[in-house]
Amino acid sequence: MNQPWNAFCPTLTLALVLTAAAAVAAQDGTEWRSIEAASIAYMQLPGGEAIIELNAEFAPTTVAQFKRLVRDGFYDGLAFYRVVDGFVAQGGDGSDMADPNSEPMLPAEFERPWSGELPFTSVQKPDMFAPETGFIDGFAAGRDMQSRKVWLTHCPGVIAMARNDGSDTGSTDFYIVIGQAPRYLDRNLTIFGRVVSGMDVVYRVIRGPSDANGMIAEGEPSTIIEKIVLAEDVPVAARKDVRVTDTSGAEFGKVLQSRKKRGPPFFHHKPPEVLDVCQIPVATRIGR
Amino acid sequence: MNQPWNAFCPTLTLALVLTAAAAVAAQDGTEWRSIEAASIAYMQLPGGEAIIELNAEFAPTTVAQFKRLVRDGFYDGLAFYRVVDGFVAQGGDGSDMADPNSEPMLPAEFERPWSGELPFTSVQKPDMFAPETGFIDGFAAGRDMQSRKVWLTHCPGVIAMARNDGSDTGSTDFYIVIGQAPRYLDRNLTIFGRVVSGMDVVYRVIRGPSDANGMIAEGEPSTIIEKIVLAEDVPVAARKDVRVTDTSGAEFGKVLQSRKKRGPPFFHHKPPEVLDVCQIPVATRIGR
Repeated sequence: MNQPWNAFCPTLTLALVLTAAAAVAAQDGTEWRSIEAASIAYMQLPGGEAIIELNAEFAPTTVAQFKRLVRDGFYDGLAFYRVVDGFVAQGGDGSDMADPNSEPMLPAEFERPWSGELPFTSVQKPDMFAPETGFIDGFAAGRDMQSRKVWLTHCPGVIAMARNDGSDTGSTDFYIVIGQAPRYLDRNLTIFGRVVSGMDVVYRVIRGPSDANGMIAEGEPSTIIEKIVLAEDVPVAARKDVRVTDTSGAEFGKVLQSRKKRGPPFFHHKPPEVLDVCQIPVATRIGR
Repeated sequence: MNQPWNAFCPTLTLALVLTAAAAVAAQDGTEWRSIEAASIAYMQLPGGEAIIELNAEFAPTTVAQFKRLVRDGFYDGLAFYRVVDGFVAQGGDGSDMADPNSEPMLPAEFERPWSGELPFTSVQKPDMFAPETGFIDGFAAGRDMQSRKVWLTHCPGVIAMARNDGSDTGSTDFYIVIGQAPRYLDRNLTIFGRVVSGMDVVYRVIRGPSDANGMIAEGEPSTIIEKIVLAEDVPVAARKDVRVTDTSGAEFGKVLQSRKKRGPPFFHHKPPEVLDVCQIPVATRIGR
């Protein structure tokens, strides 16, 4: 692994940097951030488990309803009924596409006022889709200091509420981004979490036909959400210790800098010194 | 499917536009482009088949060697030995990571001179990573009219040759992009094709550990490339008719325009009028 001829030297270097950071973290505890049980949901799919970090800072009402629905067993046995390869996997009871169910509709939580107390680590200014991008607690975010707004951005792995035309019409059905970041959806839908582990499992979800907007017809094979469980509802001893890179830490700042300044020996054409916030890995560590 | 409250109206609309375009195509033949057999490879993986379009326009030497290796059965039975979730799945004999094999090294085919004869459909100018992006025969591309260069860009589904530090050190092992577009690799590696069908199959490839740069240790489970076959080597009657959206057609131009100008009733916050070239679907139709 330390051979200089590694096909992706820059990536390898980064991986080593991350490993070094982990060691540091073990000493001073600054590099990894433990996710509290109140913000974790385990989603059991046929291919394995996806772990979701919920974000009540940006979507308090949506997270509260999602947690209540999870506790009610609402999602258990329901399907990903609309899956567009390279875009989104949408799951739930389909009420979003047909007759509404009886669950309350949710107010839009598309953005929030900027607060200096949020641990915003700047990544790119300007970005093509936002005046500025950065990370807040591992979540990719956009920021506009002129209007003093901040929002979560649509990167792969993000989970958000589907809705109808009205901004306050989401209720139960959600989608997970499984393709190139559809950033044009930013500030138009409520992102309430992200998959921090098990995206490979999510990518196994059965796709719908692209000429039917990904809608899977009744009787056709689809992937079932076997169960969603909140970490809070699992005995403490059985909970997983989920840690993500502390994106406000100094080590992560160094990673951002090294990714921005790529050069020899691997790079023969110097890439522009810009970063796509959705292309920066935020590492996760799972323990017991 | 025609309900106005569809959770992703704009996408739905696009799907309908594409469907309409298909109908047009059946009449005047302008909207779909048939891929010639000489540019098609079928990759058999445990989860199914991925169809690759090779691009000899941009990477003639690499495509020639890849086709020869495929005919030699070089890849059959080899593994995806380095798989980084959200980044790349790299396959081959591992020679790229260890002792080189005896296959010839390939000259860099990272970019080519701009030629007015290329059917370039402009998408975004400027783009964060290139002075301009666009499509050439369904492939996302970057263009710099100042240096008069054009290149294929690293979007999801792209297949490119891995290499060591030297620009001319690729030979056999390739990677497929399975995550958010790593655009910083543009003009530094030889993209020689793209998966036009079966990305869901590619996404099933077993990942390596993220703290080992995705390298799968010997003895650990990995996904095997069962077989790669060139369409040319299959009897004409057994070949698939693979068509992709004609990205130089008028209908595709309209799709680009509609994606750039999003608004009510679905969009409450108007997205910036920019397009990420890697986020624009190019549809594929498979027949017999």
